[in-house]
Amino acid sequence: MRWVLPDHIQDALPSEAEKLERLRRRLLDAFRSHGYQLVVPPLLEYLESLTTGAGQDLRLRTFKLVDQLSGKTMGVRADMTPQVARIDAHLLNRTGVSRLCYCGSVLHALPSTLTATREPLQLGAELYGHAGIDADIEIVRLLSEVMRLAEVPASRIDLGHVGLFRVLAARAGMMPEREEELFDLLQAKDVPGLRELLADVAEPTRSALLALPTLYGGVEVLDEARRCLPDEPEIRAALDDLATLAAALADLPISFDLADLRGYHYHNGVVFAAYGSGSPAALALGGRYDRIGQAFGRARPATGFSLDLRELALHLPDATEPGAILAPTVADEALQAMVAQLRAQGEVVMTALPGHDGSWKEAGCDRQLIERDGRWTVEALQGE
Amino acid sequence: MRWVLPDHIQDALPSEAEKLERLRRRLLDAFRSHGYQLVVPPLLEYLESLTTGAGQDLRLRTFKLVDQLSGKTMGVRADMTPQVARIDAHLLNRTGVSRLCYCGSVLHALPSTLTATREPLQLGAELYGHAGIDADIEIVRLLSEVMRLAEVPASRIDLGHVGLFRVLAARAGMMPEREEELFDLLQAKDVPGLRELLADVAEPTRSALLALPTLYGGVEVLDEARRCLPDEPEIRAALDDLATLAAALADLPISFDLADLRGYHYHNGVVFAAYGSGSPAALALGGRYDRIGQAFGRARPATGFSLDLRELALHLPDATEPGAILAPTVADEALQAMVAQLRAQGEVVMTALPGHDGSWKEAGCDRQLIERDGRWTVEALQGE
Repeated sequence: MRWVLPDHIQDALPSEAEKLERLRRRLLDAFRSHGYQLVVPPLLEYLESLTTGAGQDLRLRTFKLVDQLSGKTMGVRADMTPQVARIDAHLLNRTGVSRLCYCGSVLHALPSTLTATREPLQLGAELYGHAGIDADIEIVRLLSEVMRLAEVPASRIDLGHVGLFRVLAARAGMMPEREEELFDLLQAKDVPGLRELLADVAEPTRSALLALPTLYGGVEVLDEARRCLPDEPEIRAALDDLATLAAALADLPISFDLADLRGYHYHNGVVFAAYGSGSPAALALGGRYDRIGQAFGRARPATGFSLDLRELALHLPDATEPGAILAPTVADEALQAMVAQLRAQGEVVMTALPGHDGSWKEAGCDRQLIERDGRWTVEALQGE
Repeated sequence: MRWVLPDHIQDALPSEAEKLERLRRRLLDAFRSHGYQLVVPPLLEYLESLTTGAGQDLRLRTFKLVDQLSGKTMGVRADMTPQVARIDAHLLNRTGVSRLCYCGSVLHALPSTLTATREPLQLGAELYGHAGIDADIEIVRLLSEVMRLAEVPASRIDLGHVGLFRVLAARAGMMPEREEELFDLLQAKDVPGLRELLADVAEPTRSALLALPTLYGGVEVLDEARRCLPDEPEIRAALDDLATLAAALADLPISFDLADLRGYHYHNGVVFAAYGSGSPAALALGGRYDRIGQAFGRARPATGFSLDLRELALHLPDATEPGAILAPTVADEALQAMVAQLRAQGEVVMTALPGHDGSWKEAGCDRQLIERDGRWTVEALQGE
């Protein structure tokens, strides 16, 4: 059958497409009003550029293509964040802060879960050129505002810090492959697996790594972490950052999960994951990733977040707009003027086509333009 | 260098991206008000589905990928029109008219000209389920409206009819390869080449095919065509359709080019190409393509047009909006209320970040919020 789509690939039909467009505009308008400028990076880049600074995971998820013009390997973007970092680093070339946002499709060669799409519609905002915690505060606030606008207020925003994991993994003297394994076990909160992997690691690093999966919950988690993690400057600094963030965002539903390190391949500071009520999976992920700028040859601090607009739009209520108005095909100037006026007021006006044999209700009409005593008026659709 | 893009691939930086977004919204709003519903087909499909009903040309331009899930060959769409026809035929399943529109990136493995992008942003509108000329009239009018909204009013809309070529090629008894060659020669208006190819073709078909490249200009072209093309029912019907269209669109800058057959692989009736003043290449192409529906197993008449929004946006003037307003980082409720109010009014308000060492003018600010006698006011940006 020629009209079957590949698995994990789907069309958005009119009612879903309308929601995507409504939400897209609402969120891009919010970004704009906060000073975030839109950029549109390309779908295709050379593979090395697309996967710069990113992890193995992103490389495996990227569709590869051969460029018939250069013979080089290209990839279809699987994540727009590195592209936007490239634009900040090399094209805008600003010395101070730049705030950028984007919205576009990305493709994944393999779906990330059994139910995930392979074509998320990635939307995000990034703040470059400021290393302080104030930038992270601004980004988490903006994320919270985005979720409010999407009519899925954040029910929980989990904060974590990749620095904690990096310091402990470095103290444990792990090779990169074992660090990956450690990362996976921590993400899975697999304590028996962790005990096994960490059998040879010296104290107090071993206990600290074993404690990470237990460090989740309210602000008391930070006190607990100060007690059970080694008293090192980098660890103190990371916990202080988290405390500052929590204090500045006290009006938001902030919690902590110090073993949640999603995206740690390019993140290096505060990370966060936002949840909406009724959805077990995180709706948005973000954090600080100062390392990508370095990979592009220009060290620029960066923090931001992104989300899948398709996923977010699932939570948006249907539009409550009236249906369309059917206009007859009559060469009448008064009718044309009336049609133009209705359209300018935001109404949908469809022209009837001679010989049409379907139902206009099926096409979305619930009213029609009818001439009464020489005047065109809108009435309920009759006669179907 | 990791930040070099492949040839014929480009980023849209903030000023271009702003224009793309502004134009996208304006045109999708116009489609909506005329009853065209937005659909979002996927970037990826199985190759056979993407190239159904389309020509060799589209097959060569399509990037191919292997699906790791099914082992089948997929393509990245090079044209969205067949996708939208598939949606009409199989997903909406309406018996009557359906009006659909779309806007999305397509990828071309090879650029169509020396200066063309390989990632056009295709935007279009399609009308399904109506075989009459009234549908074509509506579509050409809508195209003209779209160009007016894009601030490049159509300077010329060339009409043609693929039926003329098909009837004459069938009378000449050509094999498919020679028909392709004939098509190319006609497009290039290469009369010596045509004479050679048509040497063995009998009269009056030979003279008729040789006459096609001369049949361009005003409405007098139709009379000329009636004189020099064979008097066959299908040719008469095609010329009558063109005459009806021209009469109904007499207020538009309509002209004729009976050898212009772009997209003839899937078109089968009236075709048209719209030009803006100052641009030698057509900005939008369209026409009737009842054959695609058949290829998808459900014969539905169809007519529509599409264009590259990137190309169209080049003609759009820059926005004349004021710059952004800089707000200090102060925990002050009156300030926060003022910032929210300014944003709701459409202003861009950026928050200053402590320790920032760039220029706020560089970031786009030209005004700032300052406290005077206990009240926050917007003043010109000082001190940079």
